[in-house]
Amino acid sequence: MEAFSDGVFAIAITLLILEIKVPPHAGDHLWSDLGHQWPSYAAYVVSFLVIGIMWVNHHTLFSYVVRVDRTLMFLNLLLLMTVAAIPWPAGLMAEYLREDNASHVAAAVYSGLMVVMALNFQALWWHVTRTGHLFDDRVDVTAARATRARFALGSLAYPATVLLAFVSAPLTLAAHGVLALYYGFNQLRIPTRETV
Amino acid sequence: MEAFSDGVFAIAITLLILEIKVPPHAGDHLWSDLGHQWPSYAAYVVSFLVIGIMWVNHHTLFSYVVRVDRTLMFLNLLLLMTVAAIPWPAGLMAEYLREDNASHVAAAVYSGLMVVMALNFQALWWHVTRTGHLFDDRVDVTAARATRARFALGSLAYPATVLLAFVSAPLTLAAHGVLALYYGFNQLRIPTRETV
Amino acid sequence: MEAFSDGVFAIAITLLILEIKVPPHAGDHLWSDLGHQWPSYAAYVVSFLVIGIMWVNHHTLFSYVVRVDRTLMFLNLLLLMTVAAIPWPAGLMAEYLREDNASHVAAAVYSGLMVVMALNFQALWWHVTRTGHLFDDRVDVTAARATRARFALGSLAYPATVLLAFVSAPLTLAAHGVLALYYGFNQLRIPTRETV
Amino acid sequence: MEAFSDGVFAIAITLLILEIKVPPHAGDHLWSDLGHQWPSYAAYVVSFLVIGIMWVNHHTLFSYVVRVDRTLMFLNLLLLMTVAAIPWPAGLMAEYLREDNASHVAAAVYSGLMVVMALNFQALWWHVTRTGHLFDDRVDVTAARATRARFALGSLAYPATVLLAFVSAPLTLAAHGVLALYYGFNQLRIPTRETV
Repeated sequence: MEAFSDGVFAIAITLLILEIKVPPHAGDHLWSDLGHQWPSYAAYVVSFLVIGIMWVNHHTLFSYVVRVDRTLMFLNLLLLMTVAAIPWPAGLMAEYLREDNASHVAAAVYSGLMVVMALNFQALWWHVTRTGHLFDDRVDVTAARATRARFALGSLAYPATVLLAFVSAPLTLAAHGVLALYYGFNQLRIPTRETV
Repeated sequence: MEAFSDGVFAIAITLLILEIKVPPHAGDHLWSDLGHQWPSYAAYVVSFLVIGIMWVNHHTLFSYVVRVDRTLMFLNLLLLMTVAAIPWPAGLMAEYLREDNASHVAAAVYSGLMVVMALNFQALWWHVTRTGHLFDDRVDVTAARATRARFALGSLAYPATVLLAFVSAPLTLAAHGVLALYYGFNQLRIPTRETV
Repeated sequence: MEAFSDGVFAIAITLLILEIKVPPHAGDHLWSDLGHQWPSYAAYVVSFLVIGIMWVNHHTLFSYVVRVDRTLMFLNLLLLMTVAAIPWPAGLMAEYLREDNASHVAAAVYSGLMVVMALNFQALWWHVTRTGHLFDDRVDVTAARATRARFALGSLAYPATVLLAFVSAPLTLAAHGVLALYYGFNQLRIPTRETV
Repeated sequence: MEAFSDGVFAIAITLLILEIKVPPHAGDHLWSDLGHQWPSYAAYVVSFLVIGIMWVNHHTLFSYVVRVDRTLMFLNLLLLMTVAAIPWPAGLMAEYLREDNASHVAAAVYSGLMVVMALNFQALWWHVTRTGHLFDDRVDVTAARATRARFALGSLAYPATVLLAFVSAPLTLAAHGVLALYYGFNQLRIPTRETV
């Protein structure tokens, strides 16, 4: 399960580059055509961080999971479906970030997918902490359960980015970059018996 | 053999997103253009489930297989050839699901590939249970052989979807989603000596 | 080294499907448009077999290699460069197999790449049997060296397909399918001390 | 961490082939159209070597790293972001190498990415040798630190290729090929206690 998931993360993150196009027929104005494409680069960097950090957290969680039941298998498949979809809204952002109305739509779709991904990861964490027996013996299940409220609270930032999408699409993309970095430096900690 | 197969499953499932296009020149009607693309999203979700669940069953089977003969190697290569092809009929569905005559063609091709995949998996199961010695010692080979009739019967649903394709393409796609979920919740069980 | 190589094989084999296009604007003649694309399907099946069987032989070889020197690393990288390139001549075949002059060019390029791949695999085998110490202790190095002449002879079929390309492109593609199957059923055997 | 990184390297290297296009509507002049595409082939070969050799060095480094801290995780993610981006400047080179002004731009972008990649690898090496405790016990940390100056000096070749880009784009591409081969034959050596 984990090797398959790692594969999907690695492929999705590498496919992001296909959304940065080679400008056609640029002739003598290749520099300006490349500059004009800045939304592609921004969408690439932010989406790379988003998938990369999500992978780190997914990897941390699954390194403590030793049994997989059907619900977990199914929730994980849904999470992968969301992660693997990220190149598409990244492409939307790349295409429409510099347009007026369309930029808000693109940003809302991007943020919407992030909401679904965050909810999905929540559901996965909820299921693993609720059942308890899927965890490795090292894990302090009671302490893990206690993290749920704080963890859910942290995810409220994602619905907020949907609202932000209607204010400014570039700001929304920046916000997703900041959120990814925040979760990169405040990674999921699985409480173990030793640490309690 | 298994790491290679897992790689092909993971890549095929992640390439599906390339069939969801970024609408070009959408301008102010990006919302409606995105809505218009609903067949892409439906084909993505269903095909993701199909490949994901097939991977789970493939993985379960191969976790009990400890020897590989040439026939098994060859049957597995054919199965991977079918799985890796799924992004293409998924793209057909995405392109033609909203058209009249063409939608039936696209759905028939999609269903046809599913028939081939189901037959292939049957052949693989038949070969492994017939030879017996490819299995791990834990497996109850007699009981495994006894599952073949019931298993083959279950696969009759796939030819039925070819007929359904000529009635309604959206219904056909939905049927494949339901079949994937059904096999997700009624996964392949390999009878082991302890369970008999 | 082997996990990386397996990854490249798995990705190259799965990218082949991107060369089968969804016919655009097919309307009511989708069946005939799909039929018209038969070179795509043929190129997909043959190229899938070619990469799949090459992977089996590569995997067999490397399962007996326990040390990697720079030359082996470099020869392996060149082999992967050839394998990863196969989707491109497969696309050429798909595009030009039904045209007159262009079909010979496409078939010659396809066969040319197969010659390079066969030479590369020869060089790899030559290097590993010559040095000897890269092999696992199980391997009978003298017997392995003795296979080289017969093995090189077998590879003469590839230059012959370059000539065949100027006679008939469809026959050339069929020949590559037959060669892949031949090597699939007459796989590389590494002589071990027990078998001598 | 390492399996994920290996996956990204393997995918990025295999996606390079997508930058070699099948010439459309070539008719009877397919040979000359294929010849005309020589920049695609050159960019493919050089970029394949660049990613392949970088993978070898990355793999060597990580085979001596047994602990991962946040900084290392982050620096590695940035390095992967650079490696995964290579298909894009490779595509730029393929498209514009035969044009006059645009070729210098494409070559400068290619070289610029190589500078970023080299700096990134330097930062990774600096961090791992500075902290020391992330290394395996076999590693002679003092000797590893002593390599830093020489290692940094070697990387000065990359900024030089940015200047070369404004002289000649084909020469720049050739220089990157030579640099990759140089680093392939003078790989990163991690000093171990035994070798001191």
